[in-house]
Order: sequence, then structure tokens, then C-alpha cells
Amino acid sequence: MKTKAAVAWKAGAPLTIEEVELAGPRAGEVLVEIKATGICHTDYYTLSGADPEGLFPAILGHEGAGVVLETGSGVTSIKAGDHVIPLYTPECRQCKFCLSRKTNLCQAIRATQGKGLMPDGTSRFTVGGKSVHHYMGTSTFSNHVVVPEIALAKIRDDAPFDKVCYIGCGVTTGVGAVVFTAKVEAGANVVVFGLGGIGLNVIQGAKMVGADKIIGVDLNPRREALARQFGMTHFINPSEVDNVVDHIVQLTDGGADYSFECIGNTKVMRQALECCHKGWGQSIIIGVADAGAEISTRPFQLVTGRQWKGTAFGGARGRTDVPKIVDWYMDGKLNIDDLITHILPLEKINDGFDLMQRGESIRSVVMY
Amino acid sequence: MKTKAAVAWKAGAPLTIEEVELAGPRAGEVLVEIKATGICHTDYYTLSGADPEGLFPAILGHEGAGVVLETGSGVTSIKAGDHVIPLYTPECRQCKFCLSRKTNLCQAIRATQGKGLMPDGTSRFTVGGKSVHHYMGTSTFSNHVVVPEIALAKIRDDAPFDKVCYIGCGVTTGVGAVVFTAKVEAGANVVVFGLGGIGLNVIQGAKMVGADKIIGVDLNPRREALARQFGMTHFINPSEVDNVVDHIVQLTDGGADYSFECIGNTKVMRQALECCHKGWGQSIIIGVADAGAEISTRPFQLVTGRQWKGTAFGGARGRTDVPKIVDWYMDGKLNIDDLITHILPLEKINDGFDLMQRGESIRSVVMY
Repeated sequence: MKTKAAVAWKAGAPLTIEEVELAGPRAGEVLVEIKATGICHTDYYTLSGADPEGLFPAILGHEGAGVVLETGSGVTSIKAGDHVIPLYTPECRQCKFCLSRKTNLCQAIRATQGKGLMPDGTSRFTVGGKSVHHYMGTSTFSNHVVVPEIALAKIRDDAPFDKVCYIGCGVTTGVGAVVFTAKVEAGANVVVFGLGGIGLNVIQGAKMVGADKIIGVDLNPRREALARQFGMTHFINPSEVDNVVDHIVQLTDGGADYSFECIGNTKVMRQALECCHKGWGQSIIIGVADAGAEISTRPFQLVTGRQWKGTAFGGARGRTDVPKIVDWYMDGKLNIDDLITHILPLEKINDGFDLMQRGESIRSVVMY
Repeated sequence: MKTKAAVAWKAGAPLTIEEVELAGPRAGEVLVEIKATGICHTDYYTLSGADPEGLFPAILGHEGAGVVLETGSGVTSIKAGDHVIPLYTPECRQCKFCLSRKTNLCQAIRATQGKGLMPDGTSRFTVGGKSVHHYMGTSTFSNHVVVPEIALAKIRDDAPFDKVCYIGCGVTTGVGAVVFTAKVEAGANVVVFGLGGIGLNVIQGAKMVGADKIIGVDLNPRREALARQFGMTHFINPSEVDNVVDHIVQLTDGGADYSFECIGNTKVMRQALECCHKGWGQSIIIGVADAGAEISTRPFQLVTGRQWKGTAFGGARGRTDVPKIVDWYMDGKLNIDDLITHILPLEKINDGFDLMQRGESIRSVVMY
């Protein structure tokens, strides 16, 4: 079939809207009509050329929601008409990782996904006879996509696509880091470094589970108002205090129970660890650092009980947990509406990247 | 009263045996006759002058066992005749740390203990009218000591002092790191870097809880035989493999479930983290690094699910857990006898330091 997609032909160039040829779903695969997709920093990271694993040409996009049109042979958990969110972290429920009960990082199709291909080692996308890579197994910048069954979360039919698409990455990454990775408990003191989309979702996750102090740290004073709306109780501008670590330790009577780094800055990652409470404070790295950048600290920080962790996709198992997060949104426990600052047609997708780069949007969503 | 002790007058000098004046126990304090004490690397670290917090003159020693002779006013949990192990990590059961249920690092008397003093800010030791510092709140290189009630684990009367004194530090640090900090489960693959006294205790802890592969890593091939006796299943000499991390990842089909650094080398700490299994591997730092040394890695290691932790006194709550470890030894679950390689009188204590420095002893014990 033919569909419409924003194609990344090469690093650093704007996306172009193309008519794309999409081959139908093979065994274990599903054809999905994408209804809405968010534009995420990770898409920009790859488009910019900074991602050492970036492949071109490709159809980017990994934060979508849509409707199943057709299923390939052997697909049993999904049927035409189902509403779904494509998962860049699949959940096969059969690999060593899924069965470990300790991680969400299903490895069933990792090798081919990393090569921009479907599990059988081929692409379903062609433009003018030329094969185009998939991206993160999702390619939601195409109006129609083929994805493996294990990479689809089935969600309720009444959830609005233009909001819940954000659960495909940002919401789950932030809220999940609190709920699934850190398992923050009621009464805990939480510190969030970086109040962009991920940080705001960490904040509302912390609020949802009953955290006590929720301290936001950002150099941009304009972030404060929205963060307070999402549950932040204290704001720290690092440029206005002598030492952000000492300031947090005092404010929390000993340090954070949990801290989250949502920027990707290795110096901030160190601060996030060292502001944690002796004996039990956990620091969770969410941000993606520059290739080759390293974190460091004195081992004494760990020997005295702080823990250094990280999270990908918020520790959420896509098929199991994403539908729950959709429920939490529909039940009013999570606010997504105020995070979707811009709605664009596919033709304006490059404007969405510009808005993100200028820091003017929290999340821009493309509606097909 | 008068007692006999090995006194550290200054950094770098041998200990000298002195007649020491010991003041009696004040409120909340207990007079203990030390029957046996181990000689630990940490004593050497302080004696050498490398410990930036070292104080002189002091009576070192922190790995003892003995009998209660007298209790000060208000002491209720301990009575004369009780067999006890002094605790450099006390357990007050009332401070924020004890009540957190998340750490063993009781802070009730930390400030004065760090200054080489009893909780009331004074020393009980004098030599020739000159005040001598306590050390780690224990000073087990003195035949008699006064320690706070909260820094005494009451143990069973039939446990031999010359063996269970080692539970005052080394055994608990190694076994506890497995049982209390990492909570290693049966079937897990464990890697231990450094096969000295701590590493051997990590190994027997891992064996006790039913670990599957127990891999020891040491540059010294002479460590292999004893480590195998304690439960090591595989030995790696880093000088005999191209890349110790890759070697471990292959040997464990993906990486260690738990790794333990028992050396204090920050480069090895990085290897210990990076040999852990993606998704869930935990690396526990036990070794004490040089002052100012830093650990580092790429944050990707954590974002993909590895966890970096540390442990002090094996995560054991002294009064609660040390008596259990004594039971495990008495029940034959733990082997201490084969780790006590040398028994010395107090007068030969400097020989014990020499044996340790030359790598000829696992543990030397001074019997009073």
C-alpha cells in the first residue's frame, strides 16, 4: 500500500514528506494506521547526526498511537480495530530478559531493530524503489507502519490519540522511572534535575505516589510555574545558590530519597547522586549523555549507601504497563493535556523540531 | 583500672605494648574484657598514615570478642558475664537511619566516634596521664575497653572468641554484602574481585545462599586453592585473559547477576560494574579506595539496567545480625577456622601487621 511519511534522507537535513510504499504485515506482524505522534528529543538526536547508531534514509518517530488495520499470520493478541501504542521497547514475554522479572529491556528483536529492520531482516518501507530504514521499530512519522505484534500495547478505545501518543515515550519514561524503576514510596523526598517534558512527568509521577518534597532544579526560571502545576513543591535555580548539592541536603534534612537526572549532563548526574541521602538515597539516570561522556564520583558515596541506577522507557514493560498508564491518564491521575503545547499536521513536522530546539514547546504532536 | 594495650603513638611507627589506665563505664557504657581481636587492613590503613581521618595517639583494633565485666547506669540489654562483639557500626534502633529500615549506618554516636571519643566527648584511655584516642569506637587492641551499650552485639556463650572475633569485621563485611546488601538469590551468578579475607567471605556467603557460578578474580594464582575450598567455582587470573570483562560476560552468558569489588581499586570497580548483566546486574563496592580516587563509567551502563552500590559492615545491623552470623558459624554454614591462619600474643601484634602486608596471612588473631 501507499502511505505518507516524513522521511529523513540524511543527517542534519529537514524531513521531507513523501509518498511511501509500505509492504503488508508478514507472520507475527501488524499493520497500524498511526493517528498521532509526538516529536521527541531522541528523534532530533538521530536526525542531527549525533547518534552514532543513526541510519539513513529512515522514517523516524517513536511516540505514536493508532488503530490496527490488518494482522499477519500467527498474530493472536491483537486484531483489526484495536487501538494501540507502538513500543520501541517490545515485550515478548519469552526471552531471558522478560522472564527475569527484573527488567523491561526485552531483547527479542533488538539486533534487527538496531539495524532499522523488521525481525526477518528486511524493511517494509520503500520510496521510489529504494529501501528506507525503520527507526526504533516504530517509525511513527509514517501514517501507516508495520510493527511486530510484541511491539504493540493494546489500549482502551476511548483514549484520545493526540494525548496518549505521548505515553509511547515521554510520559512512560518519566512516570515509569518513579513508579517502576525507583518505586518511590509515599512520604519520600524527590529531586528532579531538568524540568523539560521528562522532568515534568517525573514530577507528576512523584506526586501521584504521594511523595513529600518534590524539588525541581533548572537553570530556566520560566520552567517553575508549569512544574509547580504538576506537583513541584520547591524550585532551585542552580545559578542562584552556592552549591546545589549542599542546598538540597539542607532542604531535605540529609538528602534526597530519590533523585532523577532528566537532562543528559554527566556533571549533573554526579550532583544528582551526591545530593542523595546517606544510607539509602537512590539516583536514577534518565537523560541520554553525549557519546563517550562519563560519569564519576568517589566510591565513598556508594559505600555509604547511595545507589546509582538508570532507566530506559521508565522500566515499563510495554504491553503490560503502558495500558495501565493510559488508564491513569483517563482516570485523571496524570495530566497529559497541559504538556501537549502544539498540534501540527505532518506537513509542518519540521516546525515541531524547531519549537523543541528553541525550548518553546513541551511536546508537539503531529496529527495525521 | 589498669590494662594492657598496643598503642599507636604516631603514623607509620610500630605499635608499642603499654600499661594503660582505663576509666570505668559511665551511663550507657559497658566495660568489656577483650579475649581476642583480629588484625584488619583498616587498622593498617590508619596506622600507615594514609587515612586522612586517622588520629594519634590511639588504640586501634575493631575486630574483637570478649566478656562483659561491668555495666554503667541505665544499661539494660547487656549484663556482666555476657559474651559480646564490639561494633564499630552501632545500632541504636532510634535514629533516623535505624528507623529507616533501609540502612545499617546508625548515626547515633558517629560524630564523637569519628573524633576518637566516647559519646560524652571524652576518652576513657590515658597513658602516663596523657589522653589516648579510642578508634572506631572499639579499640580492641586493648585487653579491656569501654564501649557504648548500643555498640555491643550479645552473642551465644559457646562461640569461641578466637574465631568469632573475625565476625566483628571481615566475616560480616563479606557475608553481609551478599546476604544483606545484594540479597543474592539461589541460582545467581556471582563474581568476586579480590580473593583476600573479604573476598573469601563473599564467596562463602554466595555459596551459603545457593549461588550458581561463583567466579573469583585475582592476580595471585596462589589464592585459587583456598577460594575453591570456600565455594569458588571458576577462577580468572586477569593477567591470563585478554579482557576480564568480556571473559566474565561470556562465562556467565551475558554477565554477572552480582559482582563484588573487595580490593579498593577504582579501575577494578569499573570492571566489576561493567561485567554485570544488562538489565539487572548489581555491582557492590566493598573495598576502600585511596583518598580522592574516583570511579567512572559511561552512564549507558546504568541506563541499560546495571546498578552501582556499596556496602559498609556488609549492610549488617550489628546487634540484630551479628548474633545470627555467629549462629551460622556455629551451625557449620560458615567456615571461619580456615581463615584464621595465625594466632599471636599481644606482644607479637606487629608481626601480625607484617604477615598481612606480605600477603602471608588471611587473618591473624591476637589472643589476650
